[in-house]
Parts: sequence; structure tokens; C-alpha cells
Amino acid sequence: MVRPGGRSARVQEAVHNAVRELETEAGRDALTVPLVATRAGVTPSTIYRRWGDLQELLSDVAVERLRPEAPPEDRGALAADLTGWAEQFLEEMTSPPGRAYIRDALLGDPDGSNAGQCSAYAAEQVDVILARAAERGEGVPGTEAVIDHVVAPMMYRILFRPNDLDAAYARGLVAGLLGGR
Amino acid sequence: MVRPGGRSARVQEAVHNAVRELETEAGRDALTVPLVATRAGVTPSTIYRRWGDLQELLSDVAVERLRPEAPPEDRGALAADLTGWAEQFLEEMTSPPGRAYIRDALLGDPDGSNAGQCSAYAAEQVDVILARAAERGEGVPGTEAVIDHVVAPMMYRILFRPNDLDAAYARGLVAGLLGGR
Repeated sequence: MVRPGGRSARVQEAVHNAVRELETEAGRDALTVPLVATRAGVTPSTIYRRWGDLQELLSDVAVERLRPEAPPEDRGALAADLTGWAEQFLEEMTSPPGRAYIRDALLGDPDGSNAGQCSAYAAEQVDVILARAAERGEGVPGTEAVIDHVVAPMMYRILFRPNDLDAAYARGLVAGLLGGR
Repeated sequence: MVRPGGRSARVQEAVHNAVRELETEAGRDALTVPLVATRAGVTPSTIYRRWGDLQELLSDVAVERLRPEAPPEDRGALAADLTGWAEQFLEEMTSPPGRAYIRDALLGDPDGSNAGQCSAYAAEQVDVILARAAERGEGVPGTEAVIDHVVAPMMYRILFRPNDLDAAYARGLVAGLLGGR
């Protein structure tokens, strides 16, 4: 669907910016493809051709917003790094915008590629933490074990049982993984 | 939203049945609220008033379909019961209809109650397995630990990284939980 090259990148940036501006100004329920197209200076058919529909466009915008802005903070030890990252991840994903981005990313994602990208972002951050710890000579779990026993429980509860999620829950998951294996 | 009493229950059954019939006959993309209303013998406004929109109706229908039909099989031991249940859960949820129901349940669910119901169904099945094992005198993990370390990883991967999910993955999660604690 996405045509390569400079024009394609410029169109994507203009359309993503238009979505963000219109969401801020008018709220997401006011978004329509023609409204976004006008603000972005493209034709509605450009958006339909490239994104299929509004839901798929919102999914792409959400994934952009879920992209980590910086590598995880280096606190000098695996437990501290993983705990700090998990607490921040849970705080961001349980915020109202975080929940909305997760829903958008999953919702307009017929082929699952955006959901996969969200998971890849988390795995990349975990990889950085584990590589640092390994360089320090610490014993480290596998990335997949962190995904299964720290990331997955947080995301499952955000989606399916969002009550009583706090930093202590995130800390407990990390302690269970590092202590229990 | 839902009015109590017999008429309410009859309307719900008629509308749910209409969705299932029309999905089978015409495919889900052909579903519209007026089409469902005509088939169910109610007015479209009845559906809009009670369900809000088609997505919320499809979410309710999906949750009904995700309701377990029977208690988990009793294989006589905790590891066998939990492993058998997890393998079956993963197989059902990774099937094309299973994936569609999970998405529908999550997406047309503004207040999160349908997602919560899906999670409650799994927790109830796990409770049955753990209670049986406790009666046998076996040591059992907590239901929340099974949710975090068996159910959540399966559901996370179904939603975010659906490749390479098989019965061995489900067995490994159960073995890790029962062996690791």
C-alpha cells in the first residue's frame, strides 16, 4: 500500500500531523477522512488508497505515538533498570491517552502489523536493559521471558481487567521473574 | 441501558440470533443495524437505544460466544488439568473465529465490561481447576498467578505477536508456573 520515496514520507507526515491537530482541536469523534485530507492538503482518495479507512489511519498514528522516545534509563543494575522500565511502561499505558493508543493500534490493524510493532517497541527496550546487564556480568532472563511474565501481564490487565493497576504490581512482576528463575 | 424483564431478554436473544444468522449467510462485513433489526423483528432504534452501535452489539455477541460451554475436564491432577485447559484455550482463541471474537469483544466495549467478562470466564475455569486440586491435597498457585503467567502471555501473543503459537508454548507456561514456584 505505501509507496516508497520522498513524496510518500511527506504525505504520511502531513496526514499524521493533521490527525493530531484535529484531535486536539475538535476531539477524536469529530475526525473524518475528508476533514483530515483537507487539513493535510491531500485528497480523501489519497488517504483511502493508502490507509483504507479512518480506523487504519488512527492505528498508524497510535503506533507512532507508542514509539519509545529514548532508551530505558541506566540505573546500574538489572533489577533497578527492569523495575523502573516496567513502572514507567505501566504508567504510560494506563494513562487515558495510552489506553486510547493501544485500542486504536489494535482496532484498525487488519493484518496485525501495528500490534506487532507495539510489541517490538517493548521488546527492543527490554533488549537494551538485558544487554546492559549482561555486559555488567549479571545473569539475565531471556527477552521472551520478560515479555511473557512482565510485559504480557501488564498489557493483559490494561485490556481486560484495568482496576487496581499500580507500580507495586509492576514491581512484583519483575521481582517474581528475577527471583523465581 | 438494558431494560430488565422478559421482553428485554427476548429482544436480546432475537438480535443476537439475527447477528449470527446474517454473519453465516452474508458475512460480517455485510452486517448493518437495519439488516439485523429487520431479521430480529425489532426497530433499528431498539438496537441503537440498547447497544449504541453495531460495534457494541458485535462485542456483546462475541462475549456470548466466548462463554465456556462446560467446566474444564478433570484429568485427576493439577498439572494435567491446567495444561489441558491452557492448550484448549490457546487452540480456541487462536482459531480465526476465536481471534475475531476477541477483537470484537475488545473493540466495541467503551466501558470495558465485556473485556472484563472475557477475563472472568477464564478466571472461573481456572478457579474450578485449582479448587479440584486443593481438594486432592495438591499445592496450588493463586488464580491471579495463573492469569498473570499462563492466561496473559497467551492472550498477549494472540493480540500482539500471533506467530509460532502452539500447544508446546501453552505447556511451557504451565510447567514454568508449577515448576517455578
